[in-house]
Amino acid sequence: MENMFWIGFIGAIVALLFAALQRNKVMAYSEGNEKMQKIAASIRAGANAYLKQQYTTVFKVFVVVFIILLVIAFATGGQMLSKFTPFAFVTGGIFSMLAGFIGMKIATNSNARTAQAASESLNKGLRVAFSSGSVMGFTVVGLGMLDITMWFFLLRYAFGVNDPTALGNIMVMNGMGASFMALFARVGGGIYTKAADVGADLVGKVEAGIPEDDPRNPATIADNVGDNVGDVAGMGADLYESYVGSILATFALGGVAGYGFKGMLLPLALAVTGIICSILGSFLVKTKEDATQESLLKSLRTGTYTAAILAAVIAAPLTYVILGNMGVYVAILCGLIGGCAIGYFTEYYTSDTYKPTQELAAASETGSATIIIGGISLGLKSTMASILIVAAAVVVSFFAAGGGTAYGMGLYGIGIAGVGMLSTLGITLATDAYGPVADNAGGIAEMSGLPESVRDRTDALDSLGNTTAATGKGFAIGSASLTALALLVSYVDIVQSKTEEVLDLSLTNPLVLVGLFIGAMLTFVFSAFTMSAVQKAAQSIVVEVRRQFKTIPGIMEYKADPDYASCVSLCTKGALHEMVAPALLAIIVPIATGIVLGPLGVIGLLGGVSVTGFAMAVFMSNAGGAWDNAKKYIESGHHGGKGSEQHKAAVVGDTVGDPFKDTSGPSLNILIKLCSTVSIVFSGLILAFNLMNIL
Amino acid sequence: MENMFWIGFIGAIVALLFAALQRNKVMAYSEGNEKMQKIAASIRAGANAYLKQQYTTVFKVFVVVFIILLVIAFATGGQMLSKFTPFAFVTGGIFSMLAGFIGMKIATNSNARTAQAASESLNKGLRVAFSSGSVMGFTVVGLGMLDITMWFFLLRYAFGVNDPTALGNIMVMNGMGASFMALFARVGGGIYTKAADVGADLVGKVEAGIPEDDPRNPATIADNVGDNVGDVAGMGADLYESYVGSILATFALGGVAGYGFKGMLLPLALAVTGIICSILGSFLVKTKEDATQESLLKSLRTGTYTAAILAAVIAAPLTYVILGNMGVYVAILCGLIGGCAIGYFTEYYTSDTYKPTQELAAASETGSATIIIGGISLGLKSTMASILIVAAAVVVSFFAAGGGTAYGMGLYGIGIAGVGMLSTLGITLATDAYGPVADNAGGIAEMSGLPESVRDRTDALDSLGNTTAATGKGFAIGSASLTALALLVSYVDIVQSKTEEVLDLSLTNPLVLVGLFIGAMLTFVFSAFTMSAVQKAAQSIVVEVRRQFKTIPGIMEYKADPDYASCVSLCTKGALHEMVAPALLAIIVPIATGIVLGPLGVIGLLGGVSVTGFAMAVFMSNAGGAWDNAKKYIESGHHGGKGSEQHKAAVVGDTVGDPFKDTSGPSLNILIKLCSTVSIVFSGLILAFNLMNIL
Repeated sequence: MENMFWIGFIGAIVALLFAALQRNKVMAYSEGNEKMQKIAASIRAGANAYLKQQYTTVFKVFVVVFIILLVIAFATGGQMLSKFTPFAFVTGGIFSMLAGFIGMKIATNSNARTAQAASESLNKGLRVAFSSGSVMGFTVVGLGMLDITMWFFLLRYAFGVNDPTALGNIMVMNGMGASFMALFARVGGGIYTKAADVGADLVGKVEAGIPEDDPRNPATIADNVGDNVGDVAGMGADLYESYVGSILATFALGGVAGYGFKGMLLPLALAVTGIICSILGSFLVKTKEDATQESLLKSLRTGTYTAAILAAVIAAPLTYVILGNMGVYVAILCGLIGGCAIGYFTEYYTSDTYKPTQELAAASETGSATIIIGGISLGLKSTMASILIVAAAVVVSFFAAGGGTAYGMGLYGIGIAGVGMLSTLGITLATDAYGPVADNAGGIAEMSGLPESVRDRTDALDSLGNTTAATGKGFAIGSASLTALALLVSYVDIVQSKTEEVLDLSLTNPLVLVGLFIGAMLTFVFSAFTMSAVQKAAQSIVVEVRRQFKTIPGIMEYKADPDYASCVSLCTKGALHEMVAPALLAIIVPIATGIVLGPLGVIGLLGGVSVTGFAMAVFMSNAGGAWDNAKKYIESGHHGGKGSEQHKAAVVGDTVGDPFKDTSGPSLNILIKLCSTVSIVFSGLILAFNLMNIL
Repeated sequence: MENMFWIGFIGAIVALLFAALQRNKVMAYSEGNEKMQKIAASIRAGANAYLKQQYTTVFKVFVVVFIILLVIAFATGGQMLSKFTPFAFVTGGIFSMLAGFIGMKIATNSNARTAQAASESLNKGLRVAFSSGSVMGFTVVGLGMLDITMWFFLLRYAFGVNDPTALGNIMVMNGMGASFMALFARVGGGIYTKAADVGADLVGKVEAGIPEDDPRNPATIADNVGDNVGDVAGMGADLYESYVGSILATFALGGVAGYGFKGMLLPLALAVTGIICSILGSFLVKTKEDATQESLLKSLRTGTYTAAILAAVIAAPLTYVILGNMGVYVAILCGLIGGCAIGYFTEYYTSDTYKPTQELAAASETGSATIIIGGISLGLKSTMASILIVAAAVVVSFFAAGGGTAYGMGLYGIGIAGVGMLSTLGITLATDAYGPVADNAGGIAEMSGLPESVRDRTDALDSLGNTTAATGKGFAIGSASLTALALLVSYVDIVQSKTEEVLDLSLTNPLVLVGLFIGAMLTFVFSAFTMSAVQKAAQSIVVEVRRQFKTIPGIMEYKADPDYASCVSLCTKGALHEMVAPALLAIIVPIATGIVLGPLGVIGLLGGVSVTGFAMAVFMSNAGGAWDNAKKYIESGHHGGKGSEQHKAAVVGDTVGDPFKDTSGPSLNILIKLCSTVSIVFSGLILAFNLMNIL
C-alpha cells in the first residue's frame, strides 16, 4: 500500500482534464457585441500587462533567494539545507504563479461571455461564470497534486530518500516557494485592486456622484483589471499555497507520529478523493431557466455540500484501510465541520440578511465616524466564533487522534484536520472564483450600455458571489491556522533533531516570550505596510481622476473619453513599488529573530504570528465584508438609500474596509505560513549562527 | 536589614503629606467670577453624581466577588485560597477607588482656579494645574505604599507568615482588588468621557458648526464632566493598579529568585526613593512670568528627568547594599530607560511636530476614508518601536540579572525593571494628570466668555498636556507588559508548587497553543465591547443633542439655555450599563478557560493576552493620539484649516480615535494584569476542578 502514491498523479490528471473541459465550455460562448469585446480586451490587456510586470519583479527576487539557498545547500554539502530545497523552491513558485495566471486568463475571457450569457438568461450567466470559476478551482488542486506527487517520486525513487521522516522534512520545505509567490501575488494584486477601487469610488461615487463602473470614470478599467489581478490571480496563488501547505505540513508530521509513509498516503488520498467529489458536486450546480437568486444560491450550496458530505463518507473507509486509527477520522471530520462552521459565522457577521450588518448599516444614521467604530467593533467581536471553532478543532483533533497517550499522533491529527478542511477545495474555490467574474460581467454590462435587466442579473450573480466567497474565506483562514500549527511543530522537530541540547520551549522562557511579542509585532507592522500601500496608491489615483475631471472637458457629458490607461499604469506602478517591503518583512523578520534570539525566539515568533495573524485576518476580513454589505443594504433602499448622507457614510466605511478585506486580511494567511517555512528552511543556518550560541 | 520595611510607611506619609500641601496651595487660589464658579460647580456636581453611581454599581460586584472568595477561602480551610485574600481584595479596591476619587475631587476644584490663574499669567496657570496634578500623582503613590506596607506588616508580624515565598504568593493576590476597581473606573469613565465627547463633536462641531466647549452645545457640560471621571478618576485608579501591581509581582519573584525578604525590600526601597526624587523634581517645575510654550515644556521635562536621573543614581548603592547583585541594577536602568524610550516614540508617532502625524494630516486631502486608513496603519506601525523596546528590556534585564545561570534571578530582573519604570510615578503622573485640568480650564474660559487671550493660554497649557500625557502613557503601557510577564511567571510557580506533576509549558503543547488563541480572542473581543459601548452611548447623545437643537427654540441665538443635565444623565446611564460586560469578561474568560483546558490553557491565555493586549494597546493609543493631533494641526492652519473639508475629514478621524485612545487602549493595560491576578487567585480551585483532570 505504501507504494500507492501514484494516485496523486491520477488526481492531478483528472483535475487538470476537468479544468480543460470547463475552459472549452466557457470559450464556446460568444463574447457579445463589439463594444463588449473591446472593453473585455482592455481589461485583459491591463491584467496581462500588470501580471507580466509583477512576474518580472518577482522573478528577480526569486533568483536572489534561489542563489542564496543554492549557496547554503551546496557550500555546506547539504548539511544545513537539503540540496533539493532550492529547486523545490522554484517549482513551488512557478506552480503557484501558474495557478493564479491560468485563473486570471480564463476570468478575463469569461467576463464579457458571462455578461452576454446573462443577457440571454440568469441560468446561462451562472453556468459561464461558474465554469470559469471551476477552471481556476481545479487548476489549483491539479497543479498542487502534480507538484507534491512529482517531488515525492523524485525524492523517494530517483534520489532514494527512503526514510519517511527525512522525506517529510525535505518536502515540508517545498512549501516556501509557493508561499513566497502567493504573498507577492496577494499583496501586489491586493494593492492594485484596492487602489483602483478606492480611487474610483472616492472621486467617482462620493465627489462626482456617478454610479459604480460608469464609463466616465477614468479609474473604471483599472478597477476591473484589479478584480482579475487581485481577486483572481492573487487568490489562485494564495489557495494553491494553502492547499499544498496543508498537505506538506501533514507529510512532515506523519514521521513524528510514527505512521511512516502511510501517514503521507492518507492526506494524498484524501485530496484525490476531494477532487473526485468536487467534480461530482459541480455537476449539481445548475438551475432552471427562470431561476431566482435563492434557487441559484441553493444550487451552488447543493454542489458544495454534496461534495463535502461525499468526501466525509469516503474518508472513513480510507482512514480505516490506510491507518487503522479511526481517531484520525474524527480529526478529518473536525476539519470539514470546522471549515463549514467558520464559513457560517463569516456569513453571519458579514451578510446583510443578519443582524450585525443591519445594525452596522443603522450606525450610518449618525455619520461616518460611528459606522467606522461600529465596523471595527463588529470585526473584533467576530473573532470570537472563529477562534473558538479553531480552538475546539485543535483540542478535539489532538485528543481524538491519540494525543493523550502519544503526542506525535495527536499533532498529526491537527495537521490532517487542515487537509480535511481543504479537501474539497476544487469546488469551494470554484464558487469563490466565480464572484469576480460576475463582478466584471456587471462592469462590462454597465460600460457597454446593456439593458438594465442584464445588469440586474449580473448583480444577482455578484451578490451571490459575496456569500459564497464568505464560505470560501472561512475554509482558507481556518486551514491556515491549523497548517501554521502543524508547521510550528515541524519546525521544533527539525531543530530538535539537529541539536543534542533539549530545547526549553516553555512559555515562561524569556526568549520564547520575546519571540511571541515579535510575532505580534510582525502581524501588526505587516498589516500597516499593506494598508498604507493601498492608501498611498489610492491617493495617487484620486489625484489623477480629479485631474482628468478638471482638465478633460466633456467627460461628464460623454463627449470625451477619459484616459483609462493612465490609471491602469499608475496602479501597476504603485502595486509593484509597494509590494516588495511587506513581502521581504516576512522573510527578514524570522531570520533576524533567529540570529538574535536563536531557535527559541523563532518558536515564539511563529506562535505569536500564528495566533495574532489569525485573529487579525478574521477581524479584517469580517469588518471589511460587513462594511461592504452594509453599504449594499443601504443602496437597496434602507436608511435613506442611494445618495443619502447615510449612504455617503457607508461608502466611507466600505472604502476603509477595502484594504482590510482584500489586501491585508487575506495576505496575513500567507504571512503566517511563509514565516514558518522560511524558519524551517533556514533552521540549520540559524542553529549554527545565532547570538545566543555565541554569547 | 530585613526588618527595614518600615521605610514603606515613611514613603507613604511623605507622599501623602506632600499631596496635602499641594492641595492647600491649589485651594488658596480664587475660583474666578460667579459664572466660572457656577460652571465649575455643575461639572463638580456631574462628576460627583457619576462617581457615586459608579461606586454603587461596583460595590455590588465587589460584594459578590468578596463573598465568593470568602467561601472558597474558608470552606477549604485556606487550602485553595489564602484567608487573607478576600480582605486584601477589598482594601485594594478601596485604595484604588480613593486614588481616583481624590484626584477627581482636586481636579474639579482646580479647573476654574486654573482658568482664573491663567487670566493673570501663563505661569500661574501652569502652577495651579501642575499642583493639582501633583495631588493626584502623590496620592496614588502614597496610598499604594500604604496598602503594600500595611499588608506586609499584618501578614509578617501580626499573622506570622515568615516564609518570604509564601508571603510573596499571598501578597501578589492583593493586586486583584486594585485591578478590578481600576478596570471599572477606566472602562466606565472611558465610556462616559468619549460618549460625551463624540456626541458633542458630531452634532456641535460637524453638523451645527459651533466651536468646542460652546455653551450652546447641550453636551458640553457632560464633555467636561467626562474629562474628570475618565481622564482623571479613571487614570488615577489605573495607575494605582500599575504601581502596586509592579511592586507586588516583584515581591512574588523575590522568593523564586532566592533573595528572600531582601528581594522584597529592594522594590519597596526603590519606590520610596522614587517618591523623594519626584518631590525634589517637582520643585523644579516653575517658569518666568513671560513664559513661552517651549519654556513651559522645558520646565516640566526638567522636573521629570531630574527625578528619573536622581532615582537612577540612588538606585545603584541601594541595589548594592540590599542585594549585592549589580546585574539587578542594570535591570532597573533598563526599566527607566525603556519607559523613557517608549515615551519618546509615543510622542514621535502622535505629536504634530513629527512626520507621521503631519503625513496623516495630509491624508485628509483625499477625504475621511484615507485619513482613517492612514491612522490605522500609523498605529499598527507604531507598535514596532514599543515592542522592540520591551523585547530588549526583557532580554537584557533577564540576562543581566543572572538569568543565564539562575532562571529565577533572571525573572526577578524582569519584574524589577517594571518597578524601575514606575519608580518616579509621582511626578510623571503629576504631569499627566495636569492635562485634563488644563483642558477643563479652557472649557470654563470659553463657556464663561473670558477674553480670547485666556483661552490662548489654557490652549497652550492643554497642548503641552498632550505631549506629557504621551510620555506618561509610555511608562504605564511599558510597565504593564513587564508586570504581566512577572505575573505570568508567578502563576506558573504557584501552580507548580501545588501539584506534583511537572507542567509541560511547551509552546507546542496544544493546550498552551489553544490558550494563546483564546488570549488573543479576549483582547479582540474586549476591545470590541468597549468600542461598541462608546458607540452606543455616543449615538444616544447625538440623538439627544439633535433633539434639543430642534425642539428648544433660541439655543443658537443664546436666548435659551440647553438642557445640560439630560446629557449628563444619559452619559451616566450609558457608561454604567455598558461597563459591566467587558469587566466581567476579564474575570469569566480566565476562569472558564481554566475549567475547560486546565492550568496549561490558562498559561497560554495569559501569554496571549499579554502579548496581543500590549500590541493592541499601543496601536489604539497611538492611532487615537495621532488623529487627535492631526486634527489640531489642521486647525492651526494647515491643509485648509478650520471648517474646511479636510478639517471635517480630520474630525471623523479624531472621533474614531476617541474610544481608541481613551477607552479601549488604556483599559487593555488593566485587562492584562487583571487576567493574571484572577488566574492566580483562582489557581487552587482550577487545579482541583478542570475537565483535563476529569477526562
